[in-house]
Amino acid sequence: MINTPYLLFLGDAPDGLAAKVAQGIKDWRPEYALGQLRLEGCKADMKLPDMTLEEARAAGVQTVVIGVANRGGIIAPAWKKVLISALEAGFDLASGLHNLLRDEPELVAAAKANGRTLHDVRVPVVQYPIANGEKRTGKRCLAVGTDCSVGKMYTALAMDAEMRERGLKCSFRATGQTGILITGEGVPLDAVIADFMAGSVEWLTPDNDADHWDLIEGQGSLFHVSYSGVTMALIHGGQPDALILCHEPTRAHMRGLPGYKLPSLEAVRDLALQLAQVANPACQVVGVSVNTQHLSDDDAKAYCADVEARLGLPTVDPYRHGAARLVDALAGI
Amino acid sequence: MINTPYLLFLGDAPDGLAAKVAQGIKDWRPEYALGQLRLEGCKADMKLPDMTLEEARAAGVQTVVIGVANRGGIIAPAWKKVLISALEAGFDLASGLHNLLRDEPELVAAAKANGRTLHDVRVPVVQYPIANGEKRTGKRCLAVGTDCSVGKMYTALAMDAEMRERGLKCSFRATGQTGILITGEGVPLDAVIADFMAGSVEWLTPDNDADHWDLIEGQGSLFHVSYSGVTMALIHGGQPDALILCHEPTRAHMRGLPGYKLPSLEAVRDLALQLAQVANPACQVVGVSVNTQHLSDDDAKAYCADVEARLGLPTVDPYRHGAARLVDALAGI
Repeated sequence: MINTPYLLFLGDAPDGLAAKVAQGIKDWRPEYALGQLRLEGCKADMKLPDMTLEEARAAGVQTVVIGVANRGGIIAPAWKKVLISALEAGFDLASGLHNLLRDEPELVAAAKANGRTLHDVRVPVVQYPIANGEKRTGKRCLAVGTDCSVGKMYTALAMDAEMRERGLKCSFRATGQTGILITGEGVPLDAVIADFMAGSVEWLTPDNDADHWDLIEGQGSLFHVSYSGVTMALIHGGQPDALILCHEPTRAHMRGLPGYKLPSLEAVRDLALQLAQVANPACQVVGVSVNTQHLSDDDAKAYCADVEARLGLPTVDPYRHGAARLVDALAGI
Repeated sequence: MINTPYLLFLGDAPDGLAAKVAQGIKDWRPEYALGQLRLEGCKADMKLPDMTLEEARAAGVQTVVIGVANRGGIIAPAWKKVLISALEAGFDLASGLHNLLRDEPELVAAAKANGRTLHDVRVPVVQYPIANGEKRTGKRCLAVGTDCSVGKMYTALAMDAEMRERGLKCSFRATGQTGILITGEGVPLDAVIADFMAGSVEWLTPDNDADHWDLIEGQGSLFHVSYSGVTMALIHGGQPDALILCHEPTRAHMRGLPGYKLPSLEAVRDLALQLAQVANPACQVVGVSVNTQHLSDDDAKAYCADVEARLGLPTVDPYRHGAARLVDALAGI
């Protein structure tokens, strides 16, 4: 678990896209995002107060989060200088970078000398159990997609926000690096050893109050041959009560796989439900989340209406239309 | 790749069952098994020549394989003494034990001093790629089971042996510790990082002659919630042309999961085929392998005949009836 609140380190981000982790934290956990720290040349701006390390300290920040993807796979000297100063000022560091903080001897030394923690969220730190398949109390909702990167994390976060606003009991359960940095905890599922994948999802979504919902971040797709095993572990380890289908309607082929067409929503519905019912016979598919970012307002509305008529399930783009109807759909479960 | 041939170290095995790795090597790769080395009190016997290290050296042995499961998770002092002598005599060591050879400083030192290799086959040594899903040349057959430990490795090895006898081109592709020790190479799939599972199976079964068959060792089951993700990666990474269904008819529940009933063979057939056709639309289910060890001869015959009538697929216990009909079933693919 990463201590909050955060100072978001944006480095010398060449544009806003490079700072999408920071953007995610600011959008979904604004209460964690007290300020930003930008280096010369930074083109990203989270519209947060620019803070020095001293100002962040005074504001109560606990952890400096690297909210930007770096270039070339190395931590640049200009970054390292600031990160060492942050450790010396008493902050922990958290990062989802491929190149690990723990592989930088100067950062390791500074963390040790100052009693601080380096969080590399790409690397599991827990010894997860093998899944036992036992029924757990509480409710779980899992987003499953026709493809990778179709909005599964966004869907779960939007439902989480809507449920919080309604005062319902819920937890967003992060299974990827960005999700973990946003919420401060979770399982980096794609980095877990095969035998422990489903067990790590059980660990992430333990017994809870009967009216509590875990909103589990999905990964991959049952139809994406590179990552389908990870999706399968989520379905069996998560033992969801409810599934939300996620789709991006303009994609020409599966992400990274030019030879593979996207499956239909109906195919994902039928396959995911059959598999989920192995672990939880009561599981239902309750709604559809469409990522309509490449459609006009009218086309987005028409597309969702068409899917809703075809599948008989509430269908929205939670970014454009809000997640209210998806949350409503959980009420009957 | 482990250098062959082998001397099989049986230690102080309390019974034959404890030496099942040695038994597997002797049964399936007798040409690798030149001799056995037993300590005082050993109750296992592979009916191989008992050899000293010197005799093994003279016979051409390259590697001493620990063919026995040890007790209590430690490598006993009596074992260690022999293993160090083996390294000093110029042999490599290979082991599938949970406690790793590489975690024993004395073995590491002896290996280094003598220029020998310690093979811990539970630990991947290759940096596997992410699966790309591209169609590969050659043919692949995968055993899929109703449950774990129903005879998938045995089925693939029996088909491999039958095909070799017929002079057909084939390779048994090991995906588990025992299979790797039997054949000297493979992927320890349950220890691979989630993101690289399917890629490791692609790596294991590369382009080959058009009339060459990879016989891929299956793992887990699509219906076993602890390990289904591993099975999924085999189906998508292996892109099989042919599936063999494996079943053990007397099992009361899924292995290790008292609350879970076994699926029907029909359910496994339909689900595995649908998933396999994502990666290879031409995939077919060609036969059924039944582990009849707990049935009488008559009951075994009747059970197989019943399944064959129900599913319309050649159905045998390859141990009792031979694998000929399963190999015949590949001819049409």
